[in-house]
Amino acid sequence: MTWHLPLVPAGEPGADLTAGQDGATIRRTVLPGGVRVLTEQMPGLRSATVGAWVGVGSRDESDGHFGSTHFLEHLLFKGTRRRSALDIAEAFDAVGGDANAATGKEHTCYYARVLDTDLPMAVDVIGDMVTSARLDGDELETERGVILEELAMSDDDPGDVVHEEFSAAVLGAHPLGRPIGGTPDTIRAVPRDAVWEHYRWHYRPETLVVAAAGGVDHDALVGQVTDALTGGGWDLDAGALPRDRRSDAPESAGVPAEGVALTVRRQVEQANVIVGSTGLAATDDRRFALSVLNAVLGGGMSSRLFQEIRERRGLAYTTYSFASGHGGLGTFGLYAGCSPAKVDQVTDLLVAELERLAADGITDAELERSIGQLSGGLVLGLEDSGSRMSRLGKAELVYGELLSVAESLERVRAVTADDVRELAVDLASRPRSVVRVGPFGD
Amino acid sequence: MTWHLPLVPAGEPGADLTAGQDGATIRRTVLPGGVRVLTEQMPGLRSATVGAWVGVGSRDESDGHFGSTHFLEHLLFKGTRRRSALDIAEAFDAVGGDANAATGKEHTCYYARVLDTDLPMAVDVIGDMVTSARLDGDELETERGVILEELAMSDDDPGDVVHEEFSAAVLGAHPLGRPIGGTPDTIRAVPRDAVWEHYRWHYRPETLVVAAAGGVDHDALVGQVTDALTGGGWDLDAGALPRDRRSDAPESAGVPAEGVALTVRRQVEQANVIVGSTGLAATDDRRFALSVLNAVLGGGMSSRLFQEIRERRGLAYTTYSFASGHGGLGTFGLYAGCSPAKVDQVTDLLVAELERLAADGITDAELERSIGQLSGGLVLGLEDSGSRMSRLGKAELVYGELLSVAESLERVRAVTADDVRELAVDLASRPRSVVRVGPFGD
Repeated sequence: MTWHLPLVPAGEPGADLTAGQDGATIRRTVLPGGVRVLTEQMPGLRSATVGAWVGVGSRDESDGHFGSTHFLEHLLFKGTRRRSALDIAEAFDAVGGDANAATGKEHTCYYARVLDTDLPMAVDVIGDMVTSARLDGDELETERGVILEELAMSDDDPGDVVHEEFSAAVLGAHPLGRPIGGTPDTIRAVPRDAVWEHYRWHYRPETLVVAAAGGVDHDALVGQVTDALTGGGWDLDAGALPRDRRSDAPESAGVPAEGVALTVRRQVEQANVIVGSTGLAATDDRRFALSVLNAVLGGGMSSRLFQEIRERRGLAYTTYSFASGHGGLGTFGLYAGCSPAKVDQVTDLLVAELERLAADGITDAELERSIGQLSGGLVLGLEDSGSRMSRLGKAELVYGELLSVAESLERVRAVTADDVRELAVDLASRPRSVVRVGPFGD
Repeated sequence: MTWHLPLVPAGEPGADLTAGQDGATIRRTVLPGGVRVLTEQMPGLRSATVGAWVGVGSRDESDGHFGSTHFLEHLLFKGTRRRSALDIAEAFDAVGGDANAATGKEHTCYYARVLDTDLPMAVDVIGDMVTSARLDGDELETERGVILEELAMSDDDPGDVVHEEFSAAVLGAHPLGRPIGGTPDTIRAVPRDAVWEHYRWHYRPETLVVAAAGGVDHDALVGQVTDALTGGGWDLDAGALPRDRRSDAPESAGVPAEGVALTVRRQVEQANVIVGSTGLAATDDRRFALSVLNAVLGGGMSSRLFQEIRERRGLAYTTYSFASGHGGLGTFGLYAGCSPAKVDQVTDLLVAELERLAADGITDAELERSIGQLSGGLVLGLEDSGSRMSRLGKAELVYGELLSVAESLERVRAVTADDVRELAVDLASRPRSVVRVGPFGD
């Protein structure tokens, strides 16, 4: 099936949608106030993963709120009107559940993987966090220190640094170019009021998607979600449109017209380098061709980068290409970690492989192999409840459609060598940035 | 069921053992030459993970061979008598499989996760690698560069460094104290002959365990394994005892009698600190009490370290306790990453929590919660074929017995608060080391 997820008129409950694949049953309900609930029941599974996806990320922050989305993610675990931080921690630990959260550029997800019998508890606690966080001032000050340590840890990881700096170099002043977690300066500066405003403004029925997969019953889950949110004081009957972020600001506002060459000095042994440019928006039709391009160029042990840079020349332990797509905009890059003395040679090799792809395209054998690779990976990647839960959440928030596995396979198999070549020509012609982190002079 | 895995007399095939749990069927066959094959068939799974576990790790290296086990792990992917490195990479990539390998202190595992229909291919390729690697001289020289980059990457990760230095500090001159991957100096020095010797000496039927879980048929797999190994020239009828590494050298030889205080200087933002000592051997009967102790002390969001150091004081983003058990010997430690200015305070807090545990033990509520946590985690941790495959491999090589999930749960539930207290007293009384990595003077 393909669902082009319908936007639901204000005040009208969404029609339930049901579909099946691979023995699993997928259902979707939209509550009148705009909350969307999606489930995928996987036969035989004794566990389930549930995630509350809030459609807000670092791109939605305004000046004075930078870092608020991630700060808020931490603070939701620090206590609600009904629960202390310890209560929340104990609830999940007592049943051996994995509970965590992740902040992205366009969404924030609170999730837990638990035995199916513990799912009502997980929904209750997460619903409480989403609706009723206290954002206590003392807890907030303590957590500020924790977040500064998290940023310091990330800053000590040269791989993290090169990716963050690459994103900033390519996207410039565009809101997607900002670091997700803010900077030490913005985290030190952000006042409680700003975080509170951010919470009240963005955490509301029309931005919330609850997705669950595994041993889950749809109707029961809809009931549990309704109870948890209503219990937290949310009015689920207030008519509102689910927010569609695909209509966000024009894609190129703030994106630099020229590539950037940036060197970040760190006293480390390895140089980390990324060469790249803007890429494709998440919903771009060419994203399937991009998957093939990425697989051939730097997506596995048989890829060109791995073979050329690691296998034939022994210059790197890690080298790959990557693409990251958001609403209206994306990035695309080639990475390697190598000896500082070899960084120019490795940078040249990365560039040469990108340009060779644009000049000569890919072989039929590479096309066939990459399609096999993507198809196998797609099926293997959907065996656990966590990845199925994520697929539901992203279908709703990022893609606006849910493709069945069969349809995804079909789109991958429809990619031609010409599609890949054309895309490579496009990507290779864009303003190109080079970001290096390592023991270099300034 | 509990299997105390029988050692098989030379020249006699092992009796097939069969058992079931959770709808899964576990079977074990010992081939006459000592190769052990274990499978766990998980109903409904379309994929399978297969691993070839070779019972050799860094602890088995002698002078002049340091780093050979890990070097060898890399070289098995670089070509066999029948396959080039590219052939091996393409075989797995073409089906979207995840193929990789891991070297430990006591074993080396080559594994792949593939669709069940691709399992015969995976067994054939891995069997070829285990029996017939060429260790080509030119490929070896190229790979030396790759491994040096891998070591440099690890050396740039302060978390990796503090764990490696802690292990070396506590275990000293004991073979388990050495870094798994060797050092840049040993990797630069090791000649092909030494790696070849290491390969010929350790890769043999009596050290090999093949474990598979998921959509796997035991008899078919035994046939595939036999074909692959025989095809690689191994004589599977030569009678030999499976090697039992639990009879290795006396546990304490080379272990320092005193704790060590070590500071490693790195120009990073965060200090990484570990406080700890020797722990328990992998097969120690008190390992279930250790699991409870570890859960209460530093095993989750509700644990004492997380609550005290992160939640109440905001001093760290990451803090936990850990235990690692090997044949005859183990380590036990408490970790935190914090601001360099607070490292003394945080070290004192780590020590204080360990000593409080020894002085006052744990509460009934903590005992109950940690048992729930371990029980839930045990069940949740066994839903994928990879973790079941690992469980089989480790049962055979590390524990010498395979406990059913029910039996494991029973042993966890049998732990008392007194058991935990006694163990805490023991651990807290051992020579204690403190290792810090960060921007400190020497």
